[in-house]
Amino acid sequence: MLKVALVQQRCSADVAANQAESEQQVRQAAAAGAALVVLQELHSGLYFCQTEATCQFDLAEPLDGPTRRRFEALAKELDIMLVISIFEKRATGLYHNTALVMDAGNGCAGFYRKMHIPDDPGFYEKFYFTPGDAGGEFNGFRPVQTRVGKLGVLVCWDQWYPEAARLMALAGADLLIYPTAIGWDREDPVDEQQRQRDAWVTVQRGHAVANGLPVLAVNRVGFEASPQQPELGIQFWGGSFAAGPQGEILAEASVENEEILQLEIDLAGSERVRRIWPFLRDRRIDAYGDILKRFRD
Amino acid sequence: MLKVALVQQRCSADVAANQAESEQQVRQAAAAGAALVVLQELHSGLYFCQTEATCQFDLAEPLDGPTRRRFEALAKELDIMLVISIFEKRATGLYHNTALVMDAGNGCAGFYRKMHIPDDPGFYEKFYFTPGDAGGEFNGFRPVQTRVGKLGVLVCWDQWYPEAARLMALAGADLLIYPTAIGWDREDPVDEQQRQRDAWVTVQRGHAVANGLPVLAVNRVGFEASPQQPELGIQFWGGSFAAGPQGEILAEASVENEEILQLEIDLAGSERVRRIWPFLRDRRIDAYGDILKRFRD
Repeated sequence: MLKVALVQQRCSADVAANQAESEQQVRQAAAAGAALVVLQELHSGLYFCQTEATCQFDLAEPLDGPTRRRFEALAKELDIMLVISIFEKRATGLYHNTALVMDAGNGCAGFYRKMHIPDDPGFYEKFYFTPGDAGGEFNGFRPVQTRVGKLGVLVCWDQWYPEAARLMALAGADLLIYPTAIGWDREDPVDEQQRQRDAWVTVQRGHAVANGLPVLAVNRVGFEASPQQPELGIQFWGGSFAAGPQGEILAEASVENEEILQLEIDLAGSERVRRIWPFLRDRRIDAYGDILKRFRD
Repeated sequence: MLKVALVQQRCSADVAANQAESEQQVRQAAAAGAALVVLQELHSGLYFCQTEATCQFDLAEPLDGPTRRRFEALAKELDIMLVISIFEKRATGLYHNTALVMDAGNGCAGFYRKMHIPDDPGFYEKFYFTPGDAGGEFNGFRPVQTRVGKLGVLVCWDQWYPEAARLMALAGADLLIYPTAIGWDREDPVDEQQRQRDAWVTVQRGHAVANGLPVLAVNRVGFEASPQQPELGIQFWGGSFAAGPQGEILAEASVENEEILQLEIDLAGSERVRRIWPFLRDRRIDAYGDILKRFRD
């Protein structure tokens, strides 16, 4: 059994305070026995993509910047696996939304640059983030090998894409992990909000089922006002959850409060489930060619 | 709005009686206003794949056999779309599990030969059914054009494969339709049975979400004893359901009884949902190549 912890945070504009809180929560999770701790997407600050503003690029840092070094040291000290998320500056004018995997004393074992980038009102990510590369080491939907298994780390918008989950499974991932930042438009009616959150949970549980893999989804929580229209903004819906390899919900966090969701994951469950549901055996790879098309027209 | 009906039946070994009941239920659904009626997988008989027995091939019939002709005439008479399922004999020693789409007065508008074929204890389908062809007309995950839209008809085991749903969506399907025959092993504990049914519902709702399409799943119901060990068998779990393009459950049938599940589907819902969740816009077709591999090793 793998003891995991999902850290669901409320963030402010104070990076130092956010990181101090993350550190405190990671320490608490590790003290409670967690061997793998996952932080939410862009946990060091507010979700800055609500507007397009060039000054926000000041928030970015290189892959080996201070955030990585801080949490690498923390993972080493606590002897845990730790998944963090940064706004990565790869070069001048070239930025990514990147998750890093810290493998205890071995330091950073690998990273994942968000491959699918959203862009819709309040989530202007295409302005900020270049999509991850299709090929090369640590690119193209590759899980990160750690001492507890191969972690199939994907980020937020990726969670809507069955292709991403499948490619991680085909590369031998033992676990799918989604750091994310998703919320409601407060103007939407309650039934629409509910459908959106249910869809978000359902599609990820579906990836668990289709691939016979556990899924961890770690979301931020709380209201963040729009810089341009403070009465508007995003109500991040929390609700971080863990599902087993049949998509069964194992644990679920509050939709309103900060929380450390701790639980045990049975990584051997995939062995059992894939024996009764051998979906990988019967894939029609001879007939899937058009998946590589934009549209079959 | 499209009025649809899902006919969830209990079957016996009496083909004539089963077909007479199907016909009666289709008539009832049409009388209640249904424009599209879907029958379950292999609705003419018992689920004969519980054992491997060559005599069962006597049940098969050609694509233009009596079952097609009967229901083609019925669809014409009632002026409805009708999805049926047959055990198809394509040539001596070559059989398929095939769904046919009747387009009212225009007769059979197309067919779909099950692409993913299961094989596990009690479901020995690989003995009976050749997988559908990868290419050519009415093959390779192609929806069938009817006057009410493009129907993405898939069959049973296909429902576990996100690739199948995606390929139908990419080919312009307006609706995903799964005639199916799935049930429990009575020997399994109740919690395992529940996980299996939840997984079945969840993965199909996930296809709805990932593709912004409504889904109709039509399952058989009732216990069918194993011919070899009558105390064993399959408890088909019914539970036919319809989901909207955000995966929201629109209607759900009994898990124990025969039922005609009637409801209205808003085919314009996909337009609304795909505008707020434009997943097709951001697919990384440059990075999906390994989907065509058996495994990325």
